[in-house]
Amino acid sequence: MILRIQFLAPLLAGAVSLAVDAQIPVKRFEPVSFSQVDITDHFWRPKLDKVATATLQACIYQTEEKTGRIRNFEKVKRGQHEKHEGIYYDDSDVYKALEAIAYSLKNRPDAELEKKADEWIDKIAAAQLPDGYLNTYYTLVGLDKRWTDMEKHEDYCAGHLIEAAVAYYNTTGKRKLLDVAIRFADHIDATFRQPNRHWVSGHQEIELALMKLYHQTKNDRYLKLADWFLDQRGRGFGKGKIWDDWKNPAYAQDAEPVKAQKEITGHAVRAMYQYTGAADVAASTGDAGYMTAMKTVWEDVVYRNMYITGGIGSSGQNEGFSVDYDLPNETAYCETCASVGMVFWNQRMNLLTGEAKYVDVLERSLYNGALDGLSLSGDRFFYGNPLASSGKTARSEWFGTACCPSNIARLVASLGDYIYGKNDSGIWVNLYIGSNTTLKIGKSEVPVKLETNYPWEGSVRLTVNPAKKTPYALHLRIPGWVSNVPVPGDLYRFTEAGKTAPILKLNGKPIAFWEENGYAVLERTWQKGDVVELELPMEVKRVVAKKEVVAANDRVAIQRGPLVYCVEGIDNNGQAWNLLVPDQTTFTTQLYQVSTEPVVAIQADLPVIGPSADGSRVVTEKKKVTAIPYYVWANRGKSPMQVWLPTKAKQVKLVD
Amino acid sequence: MILRIQFLAPLLAGAVSLAVDAQIPVKRFEPVSFSQVDITDHFWRPKLDKVATATLQACIYQTEEKTGRIRNFEKVKRGQHEKHEGIYYDDSDVYKALEAIAYSLKNRPDAELEKKADEWIDKIAAAQLPDGYLNTYYTLVGLDKRWTDMEKHEDYCAGHLIEAAVAYYNTTGKRKLLDVAIRFADHIDATFRQPNRHWVSGHQEIELALMKLYHQTKNDRYLKLADWFLDQRGRGFGKGKIWDDWKNPAYAQDAEPVKAQKEITGHAVRAMYQYTGAADVAASTGDAGYMTAMKTVWEDVVYRNMYITGGIGSSGQNEGFSVDYDLPNETAYCETCASVGMVFWNQRMNLLTGEAKYVDVLERSLYNGALDGLSLSGDRFFYGNPLASSGKTARSEWFGTACCPSNIARLVASLGDYIYGKNDSGIWVNLYIGSNTTLKIGKSEVPVKLETNYPWEGSVRLTVNPAKKTPYALHLRIPGWVSNVPVPGDLYRFTEAGKTAPILKLNGKPIAFWEENGYAVLERTWQKGDVVELELPMEVKRVVAKKEVVAANDRVAIQRGPLVYCVEGIDNNGQAWNLLVPDQTTFTTQLYQVSTEPVVAIQADLPVIGPSADGSRVVTEKKKVTAIPYYVWANRGKSPMQVWLPTKAKQVKLVD
Repeated sequence: MILRIQFLAPLLAGAVSLAVDAQIPVKRFEPVSFSQVDITDHFWRPKLDKVATATLQACIYQTEEKTGRIRNFEKVKRGQHEKHEGIYYDDSDVYKALEAIAYSLKNRPDAELEKKADEWIDKIAAAQLPDGYLNTYYTLVGLDKRWTDMEKHEDYCAGHLIEAAVAYYNTTGKRKLLDVAIRFADHIDATFRQPNRHWVSGHQEIELALMKLYHQTKNDRYLKLADWFLDQRGRGFGKGKIWDDWKNPAYAQDAEPVKAQKEITGHAVRAMYQYTGAADVAASTGDAGYMTAMKTVWEDVVYRNMYITGGIGSSGQNEGFSVDYDLPNETAYCETCASVGMVFWNQRMNLLTGEAKYVDVLERSLYNGALDGLSLSGDRFFYGNPLASSGKTARSEWFGTACCPSNIARLVASLGDYIYGKNDSGIWVNLYIGSNTTLKIGKSEVPVKLETNYPWEGSVRLTVNPAKKTPYALHLRIPGWVSNVPVPGDLYRFTEAGKTAPILKLNGKPIAFWEENGYAVLERTWQKGDVVELELPMEVKRVVAKKEVVAANDRVAIQRGPLVYCVEGIDNNGQAWNLLVPDQTTFTTQLYQVSTEPVVAIQADLPVIGPSADGSRVVTEKKKVTAIPYYVWANRGKSPMQVWLPTKAKQVKLVD
Repeated sequence: MILRIQFLAPLLAGAVSLAVDAQIPVKRFEPVSFSQVDITDHFWRPKLDKVATATLQACIYQTEEKTGRIRNFEKVKRGQHEKHEGIYYDDSDVYKALEAIAYSLKNRPDAELEKKADEWIDKIAAAQLPDGYLNTYYTLVGLDKRWTDMEKHEDYCAGHLIEAAVAYYNTTGKRKLLDVAIRFADHIDATFRQPNRHWVSGHQEIELALMKLYHQTKNDRYLKLADWFLDQRGRGFGKGKIWDDWKNPAYAQDAEPVKAQKEITGHAVRAMYQYTGAADVAASTGDAGYMTAMKTVWEDVVYRNMYITGGIGSSGQNEGFSVDYDLPNETAYCETCASVGMVFWNQRMNLLTGEAKYVDVLERSLYNGALDGLSLSGDRFFYGNPLASSGKTARSEWFGTACCPSNIARLVASLGDYIYGKNDSGIWVNLYIGSNTTLKIGKSEVPVKLETNYPWEGSVRLTVNPAKKTPYALHLRIPGWVSNVPVPGDLYRFTEAGKTAPILKLNGKPIAFWEENGYAVLERTWQKGDVVELELPMEVKRVVAKKEVVAANDRVAIQRGPLVYCVEGIDNNGQAWNLLVPDQTTFTTQLYQVSTEPVVAIQADLPVIGPSADGSRVVTEKKKVTAIPYYVWANRGKSPMQVWLPTKAKQVKLVD
């Protein structure tokens, strides 16, 4: 018997959102650090291992041998006025790789890898100047020019150094890099937070990094500096500095002060990093200005400017946003880093508000737009993640601007950061990823074990083993896709409501629960061996977009669980642009293998258009079509692909 | 009654080619200068007028106002160390525009335009240094650097100055610019033709220009200098200078000495200008080395690397040639300037060999690949000329590198250069373009009047009016497309032989003729009022390409007379990629209007693929399809287009 008290939800949601409306942001709960979580998941564990081996090896090879990224640090140490190699922001890739290594060492200890990291850290530390400054580009090119060009990513590189340092300390307990980061942060604080000193960072990042340093050290100097950096924007200080004619102020989110921003604009990664930092600051200062602005901007992203894959930034021209609803498929930019940024920002919004809808977006970006950036082999990458391809798209070994590989590596390796939340009276489960952790609730230690075959199956089993009876509220996220909300807002909708409801069992018996902010809440006194089982209905859902999204007009996307599907040619006689999905289509699921990845494929008998045997005309025949999860496409050579599938024929193009 | 003694042709052709095989190049006949020819043609005359007005006005506006091209000359004169505007080769665009004006003033005298030209010439002359050097870039940037960088186009600009000077002198008789050019050429000769001095021009052009100066002045210093420039190539002198890693020596035809070159390589315009200059030198020096090399290279172009439009250089990456038979349609680069260069080179090859096949290629490039570069309005241009478009291609007002607009302008304005040839015992008619000229044959003046509605109709009427009876051989080119040879070699072929033969009449009566080197020859003593009529069969022909041309596999192109046709969406319900041309298709012709241009369109009832009324499937229906001459496409907004039309359906792509 299922007792589901859904009617309570609006009432309770209203009560909770009152605090937010009153603009007193506080964290609803604390995140649980990756360093406290062991991931055992069927889906993710092999990916973490692949990152630990193939991806990090690719990063190390590129950083040490193929490019001059590490050599620049060595050159600084030698002090012989050698030439800087590469681009001025290349230090950041070293730090991001190091950060990924740090997370990975927690998931999969590896003495050799840790030795490599320590070697790099020695080189980095040796390149730090006595005053704390650390940047190989300016140290090699000429220190007289440091801190003169807002666009040159000095603070951006500093931010990545700080993130790496905090992560490495959390995994290994080694302070060396953390001390380097602290010295550099102190140098920056001393340099900038002065009367009449202005600086608009050319690429936001340092704000969120300083907040990590603040949380690590509890030194509020870094909180104030993060807030200072945010507060510099939109006041005209960047004019003629970080933006010129073609990069207008909106490109770098510098057209308005952050708290006055109402629309998402410009470069997508810059925007995501900025709002992540702003949310972090708001959570610590209680500054409601950031929260109000961010809620408006977030709606602008999610209601009007996000792909069904959770990817953002449709335009390659500015690596960012164009106009509302401009979401072309084949030319979709959807930078991997921007989806990674969506995960960051939405995590912070979830912590601030306690609302699961942010995790709905996070999950969408994570399982689709971001994960697509990493090949199954772990050593090939997408910079952009289009939603359609004519068959010439392929993953790359590396990029000139190589932000994406280490970014997806650090995201996957730090997955443990995104699963749980807690406070003194509750536990939140945001993502259904098999894992073990122990959470301190009040004075109790609560070991938690999550087992699931998500996202292929909807069953989740949670074992809680408090040593002694402990009262708390367990919050289990009920994903938006379970009900009729694929994405908050009305940009996308399912063509039909779900046929079955989620089921929650306690120790084998269905139990009543209520929903609050998108979570199923079970409040009781828990005891050793309590088992909660959640059954999420895994229906194949048809998604349609608002009519303003011209690129999706008369088209549907297919979703099952959190995964968006696509049709790739290699599964369908080499073609993906020649089929129709009529409204009454029946879909079936099928265990399927895509390269090394076992997946659940979706199949249907669809009208497929092709030449007659003699090529004299074109015929429409029903054929079995196989769709695969979007994140696994482009792993078996070049092949056409489409996410949005036409429901009716419009124009026909005969091609070779 | 037609007496057509075609069986003589092989015999005579063999006799004539003997001289060529023996490698003693001499001109078979002299070209007749534009300055001796009045063009009255129905097809071309309006185009000459459009160039004289719209195109030259666009060139003048861009040269004087929109860009700094003329201002650079003024800055040199002021001598106040002002900054050079634009790119280092921009002087050449001023010269090419001036050259176009020169030809145009012959076609259509215009006092105001001539005044403008004289003003420019004053500014150019004022920018010349006392030692003859003339280049605004180096004069403004620093004369210490002149003649140090082979890639910087100083000699290229000098070449265009010389061409303009010779043209302007021929039209107006004014020497000022010619004297400037002579002083500069003397400076260059004194600078370079020295022991142990080496210089590989970064962009060939000066060689052909010096040959024009040689023919104008009879001073063999310029012939020797032209030969010197050619002889510098392929000997390693360009290493590290005009080519680096990505621009390999073959890019600039510098991998082998010119006389050892066997394959067409690299940048198409550079190659065309080089071989034009080489042919000019060979014609004057009798140097068989150039001729042997060029015949081999020419076959490499025409047999394996030329589009059906006469366009060359399929790759945008190097603006030039890639590998044999790589002739993609939608990404075809086919720079307008390269087709213009094909006209130059093939004219020289025709003069050297007396063979009409070179004019077959010239005519194809002129009426298709080159003319397509100019809009019907005269003020919009294509830089590249693709053979297919998905509907996003549009002509531009101008380009950063603006070689193409003035190049097509000067070609069209100098059309009179390409119609006739003569020697003491014969007259050659290469192109059927309505015109009047008076040719001196021995001691006789022979007024010639050519009337035709070519290329729409095949009738040509030639009135010869020698004041006294004059014996000479009249050579009328029988285009290759009349018989079964669309293009020399076997790259393209017609699917059927022509159904009717050309007819030649003398004073109203059919007359026997023989063919020699592709010309119908009538040798007799001519007298006042003699009228020759040639009737060329204007059949619609289906062209197929050699199977190695993958982009044309299972496709046909349509040709009528010298014109290649295309299907453009605007004439066909917005679509051009949805039709099939079965083998048994019957074509009809139709007078048709494309914007301002009356044309002969080609129509057929073809299988057209499109959605059913409810969009639930795709159907194949016979519909009337209209094809238009390739050169008029993209004059009515953006629309899809294809030259190569599929004969059978292969893959289907449903698009919006």
